[in-house]
Amino acid sequence: MKSRLLSLLAMATMFTASAQDSLMFRKISDEIMLHATCYDNLRVLCKTVGHRISGSPAAARAVEWADKTMKETGADKVWLQPCDVPYWYRGKESLYLMLDGKYVKVDALSLGNSQGSNGKTLTAQVIMVHNFDEFNALPESAVRGKIVFFNYRWRQDFIFTFQGYGDAVRYRGAGPSMAAKKGALAIIIRSMSTGEDDFPHTGGTHYNDSFAKIPAMALGNKTADKLEAACKAGQPGAKMTTECHMMPDLVRSYNVIGEIKGTEHPERIITLGGHLDSWDVGEGANDDGAGVVQSMEVLRAFKALGLRPKCTIRAVAFMNEENGQKGGQAYADSARSKHEHHILAIETDAGGFSPRGLGFVMSQPQKDKILKYKDLWIPYGILDFSRDEGGSDIEPMKEKLGVPLAGLVPDSQRYFDVHHTNNDVFENVNHRELKLGAVALAQLIWTVSEQGLD
Amino acid sequence: MKSRLLSLLAMATMFTASAQDSLMFRKISDEIMLHATCYDNLRVLCKTVGHRISGSPAAARAVEWADKTMKETGADKVWLQPCDVPYWYRGKESLYLMLDGKYVKVDALSLGNSQGSNGKTLTAQVIMVHNFDEFNALPESAVRGKIVFFNYRWRQDFIFTFQGYGDAVRYRGAGPSMAAKKGALAIIIRSMSTGEDDFPHTGGTHYNDSFAKIPAMALGNKTADKLEAACKAGQPGAKMTTECHMMPDLVRSYNVIGEIKGTEHPERIITLGGHLDSWDVGEGANDDGAGVVQSMEVLRAFKALGLRPKCTIRAVAFMNEENGQKGGQAYADSARSKHEHHILAIETDAGGFSPRGLGFVMSQPQKDKILKYKDLWIPYGILDFSRDEGGSDIEPMKEKLGVPLAGLVPDSQRYFDVHHTNNDVFENVNHRELKLGAVALAQLIWTVSEQGLD
Repeated sequence: MKSRLLSLLAMATMFTASAQDSLMFRKISDEIMLHATCYDNLRVLCKTVGHRISGSPAAARAVEWADKTMKETGADKVWLQPCDVPYWYRGKESLYLMLDGKYVKVDALSLGNSQGSNGKTLTAQVIMVHNFDEFNALPESAVRGKIVFFNYRWRQDFIFTFQGYGDAVRYRGAGPSMAAKKGALAIIIRSMSTGEDDFPHTGGTHYNDSFAKIPAMALGNKTADKLEAACKAGQPGAKMTTECHMMPDLVRSYNVIGEIKGTEHPERIITLGGHLDSWDVGEGANDDGAGVVQSMEVLRAFKALGLRPKCTIRAVAFMNEENGQKGGQAYADSARSKHEHHILAIETDAGGFSPRGLGFVMSQPQKDKILKYKDLWIPYGILDFSRDEGGSDIEPMKEKLGVPLAGLVPDSQRYFDVHHTNNDVFENVNHRELKLGAVALAQLIWTVSEQGLD
Repeated sequence: MKSRLLSLLAMATMFTASAQDSLMFRKISDEIMLHATCYDNLRVLCKTVGHRISGSPAAARAVEWADKTMKETGADKVWLQPCDVPYWYRGKESLYLMLDGKYVKVDALSLGNSQGSNGKTLTAQVIMVHNFDEFNALPESAVRGKIVFFNYRWRQDFIFTFQGYGDAVRYRGAGPSMAAKKGALAIIIRSMSTGEDDFPHTGGTHYNDSFAKIPAMALGNKTADKLEAACKAGQPGAKMTTECHMMPDLVRSYNVIGEIKGTEHPERIITLGGHLDSWDVGEGANDDGAGVVQSMEVLRAFKALGLRPKCTIRAVAFMNEENGQKGGQAYADSARSKHEHHILAIETDAGGFSPRGLGFVMSQPQKDKILKYKDLWIPYGILDFSRDEGGSDIEPMKEKLGVPLAGLVPDSQRYFDVHHTNNDVFENVNHRELKLGAVALAQLIWTVSEQGLD
């Protein structure tokens, strides 16, 4: 009796994916591991276009590249979807720090979206705080006319580095306006960086319109150590000269979309995307050229294998993830106005590293439906299904249309070494790791297209 | 009734590790992620000693470094354990290939343990085969007096790259004697390499004493492509000049051992090790400086935390893993002659990459004992407990003494890009990934030391 009950329980709670499903997973994997074009495509994007901040001429070239490359996947249809994006322009910038009694030029990057000094040189004392608590305890008189150094160290004890990023990024986002509120002239931050190197990391800051928009720059970890030492040693100074500013007008740009029409349910759409824009440093290789070429790779592999998915599959190279999400908004707005039926939106924007999991933002029954197939992913090293993972570009699909979301979860250890730096280059993406990410995404899309989510 | 039965079933089949266990895992992780010395130690080993083939002066310097560095961990006792090792000497080597009608010097490495041409130049036609089947089908007359090119491509469709290595390494191991049997003068192989680059990979070959010991060299993938094209185009040639040989005498060398004495069961020993020797190229960073510094890190962390394990813990920097395993043999022989009671031997020799699992070669009840705690590893990204993983250095402990084995399972995607090449350098080890491996190992050792295996 007990054993019969156990069997019934087992039947009710377990599900064995069929041998056919398993063979399809293998077919997809073999096609991508042996014949993928994503790595070569990434090389071309990185080496011929390079970094490509929204609104820039480089971003326009990236759109051309994506249009051409998307067509090469064999997609049934490729089109550009307009969106108007901000254009933040860096211009020239320099930072000198008083180190060992004299001003020394250091490597530093203005924070994205920040307003520079209009090319004038700000010279001021630096006041160091380690965190917001220390800053909040300072009287206004201690801050006024100074440059505030937010010397907050990355929490290396967090294992999943996105947790460290979420913790540290407050200083980049809110630091300038907090300092401006107390009359600071500018801020300097220790970069949001796991790196044991000296690359400064840029990334978006957000001004509170109630306060002055003061300049803000980031230092690499080693230079931040030097400034920390200088602050401890006496009264350190900085000379900051920056030209960066937001351009007055929005710029017409585009999402690039490729589509394979579904055979049984063409009206049901599964979207997979990464973002085409990057910050204006490095080559935007891991952030997020990798996601763009992986998305294209899924279409290419389906076409090469002659797979004809039941649902419509779209690969999207989104524009303007980094500082506006205008592409993601435009995609969701278009879906809404056309009354499209989106069953799943997936993002890959966590680097081209070895994939370890798939994350979901959806109802429990929907998750359970996918998790019935989770053992199929074991041979591909996809073992973590625990994370709530979507992405900035697809978030509007959830907010405006209630679409379930999913995201690729690559190994996170190296991402914040290179993220938003001059070191985010093609050479820091491994060809097998990149392809394996595309494999897991293609397998997910095939599964949902065949089995549905409801 | 059903729900009561379910509860009973749950109690019988599940085990919830205590909150105390979970806190100890966190304590170990925080200590290592915030205060580890393993990354700095690896830098010193790589940059001041560099590569260190068994028997060489560099290997002797590595022993000195390991003795000093092991003592710095705070181990209760550090000692050298003698072993006599072979010394394979590369000397000068060059390879010219007939490419586009003229001889061009290419980058190539003699295979480890191979006998060179005594500095004379072998000039011969090259005959290409893609695998052993093709080679076996050739008549002796087609091979005699030629240089055989074993052009076997790495199977990129294998997801776990050690599977690809096991598949391809036959050509490096057995190729020379197979070719010699049919009268070949020398062989050239396409390297055992996942890389999309041109680094040649060395590594051990094994002669069958029944046949001539002919020279053997490896090409990087891009040069192998060129030779393949030349073979297809006509009658290609090669000029090989090598001096490598096995030195006539064994050299006295050492394992370096550090120990923390157990408090409750000092006679029960848990060994953790990596290997100190490397091939004579690059810096032996991932193979296996990483494993050596991780092993030392576990002792350092236990001491820094004031942990007093019930069992005795040893970290071992094994000598001569690459071409003789004399250190591993000496360690097992010593354990047997001293009637030591080893409850577990663990190896870390798969690169300093992001750890994904722990593997075991032990009885199912022993495995089950460890797996009761597996949920404790989830926050550290250790999700794969499926592999039979030990290591060459600890294999004699199993063979001679029946000791259960375990091994760290890092992500395998990048290992065979750099393995046995000039590109196996410190810069290709990430500090967080290296430390996370040490975290998982320390957690495993603590668990087995406290809970036992039986």
